[in-house]
Amino acid sequence: MTDLDARLAFVEEIDKLKSIERRTRLIDDPRNENTAEHSWHVATMALALAPHAPSGVDINRVIQMLLVHDIVEIDVGDTFAYDTKGNEEKPQKESIAADRIFGILPRKTGVEMRKLWEEYEAGETPDGAYAHSIDRFLPILHNYRTDGYAWRRHAITRTQVVKRNAIIERGCPPLWPVLLAIVDDAVAKGMLIDA
Amino acid sequence: MTDLDARLAFVEEIDKLKSIERRTRLIDDPRNENTAEHSWHVATMALALAPHAPSGVDINRVIQMLLVHDIVEIDVGDTFAYDTKGNEEKPQKESIAADRIFGILPRKTGVEMRKLWEEYEAGETPDGAYAHSIDRFLPILHNYRTDGYAWRRHAITRTQVVKRNAIIERGCPPLWPVLLAIVDDAVAKGMLIDA
Repeated sequence: MTDLDARLAFVEEIDKLKSIERRTRLIDDPRNENTAEHSWHVATMALALAPHAPSGVDINRVIQMLLVHDIVEIDVGDTFAYDTKGNEEKPQKESIAADRIFGILPRKTGVEMRKLWEEYEAGETPDGAYAHSIDRFLPILHNYRTDGYAWRRHAITRTQVVKRNAIIERGCPPLWPVLLAIVDDAVAKGMLIDA
Repeated sequence: MTDLDARLAFVEEIDKLKSIERRTRLIDDPRNENTAEHSWHVATMALALAPHAPSGVDINRVIQMLLVHDIVEIDVGDTFAYDTKGNEEKPQKESIAADRIFGILPRKTGVEMRKLWEEYEAGETPDGAYAHSIDRFLPILHNYRTDGYAWRRHAITRTQVVKRNAIIERGCPPLWPVLLAIVDDAVAKGMLIDA
C-alpha cells in the first residue's frame, strides 16, 4: 500500500463516525445528532469564538484537535457526559480504538493525530482546555435550545452540569458566566433539577 | 447583543447545516449524508492528506475554508455536481446567503470567513484549489464505494466526471491518477456510462 493509499483508507474508515449517535438533539430537527456533524460544529465554533480564547491558544491546533477528538467513537460509541460508570471504563477502550484507527495512517501522521487526541483528552494545555471547553459548552446550548431534551430524559441536576463542565472556567473564561446564566434559567424552567 | 452573543447566535444558526441533504450516500449506512458531516469529512481529509498538498499550501487556512465552504447551503440547499442548470443559478443565490449567515457574526470575523468562502469558490489560489480538489474527490470515493449510487441514479458519464473534476489535476496532483483509475474501474463495472 502506498503512503497515499493508507491516507485514503483512513479517510474511508472515518466515514463511520457519521453513524455514531449522540444523546444530544439537533436544535430544529427532531433527531439526535451524530458524532461527525458534532465534530464539524465544535471545530467551527472554536474558530468563530477564537477572539475569546485565552492568550497563547493556537486556534489552528485546536481545530485540528477537534476534528479528530471523537474519532475513537467509531469503535467505542458515544458515552453520555453524565454516565459515571461509562466514563470510568472509557480511557482503556478508547486507547485501543486510537491504536487501531490512527494506526491506519502512515506512522508519522498517525502519531501526530494521536498526540492531538491525547492532548484534547487531558485538557491540561491551553489548547487542550479551550478545545475541551468548546466541546463541553455546545451540548449545553443544544440542551437549552431543545427544552432540556437530554437533561430531562436522564434527570440531570444543576450541580452535575456545573461540576462536569468546570473546565470551561479556565479553558474559555468568557463562556463561564454564559453557562451559569443558562443553568439558572434551565432550572427555573424545569429543564434541570434544582439540586 | 454582545460580541460573544453574536458569535453564539452564529454557532446556533449553523446547526441547520446538519439538515441539508446531499446526493451522496454514506459508505456503510443506507442514507444520504448531510452537509455538516460532509464538511467535517473534507476538513479531516485535507489534514490527513496534507503531505500530498502542493508546496505553498497552508493546511490550516484550507481547513478553515472547508469548515465554512458549504455554510451557504443552509439557505440555498445542495446543488448536485452534475446539475448544469442548478449550477448556473448558484452564484447569486449563494452570495445573498453568505451576506445573511456570515453577517450574523461581528463584522471583522464575518468578513474574514466570507473571504475564505470566496477563495474556496474561486479555486484559484493554491489553498483554494487544494480545498476544492479534496471536496471534489471525496464524493467520487463515496460513489465508487457505494456501487456508483448517485452516478447510476443520474446516469453520469465518464466524461462528465473527468471534466467536472479537472481541478484536481492542479489542486492535488497525486490524487489525479487515483481518480482516473477509479473512473476506469467504475466504467468497467457499469457505475458510470462509457461516454
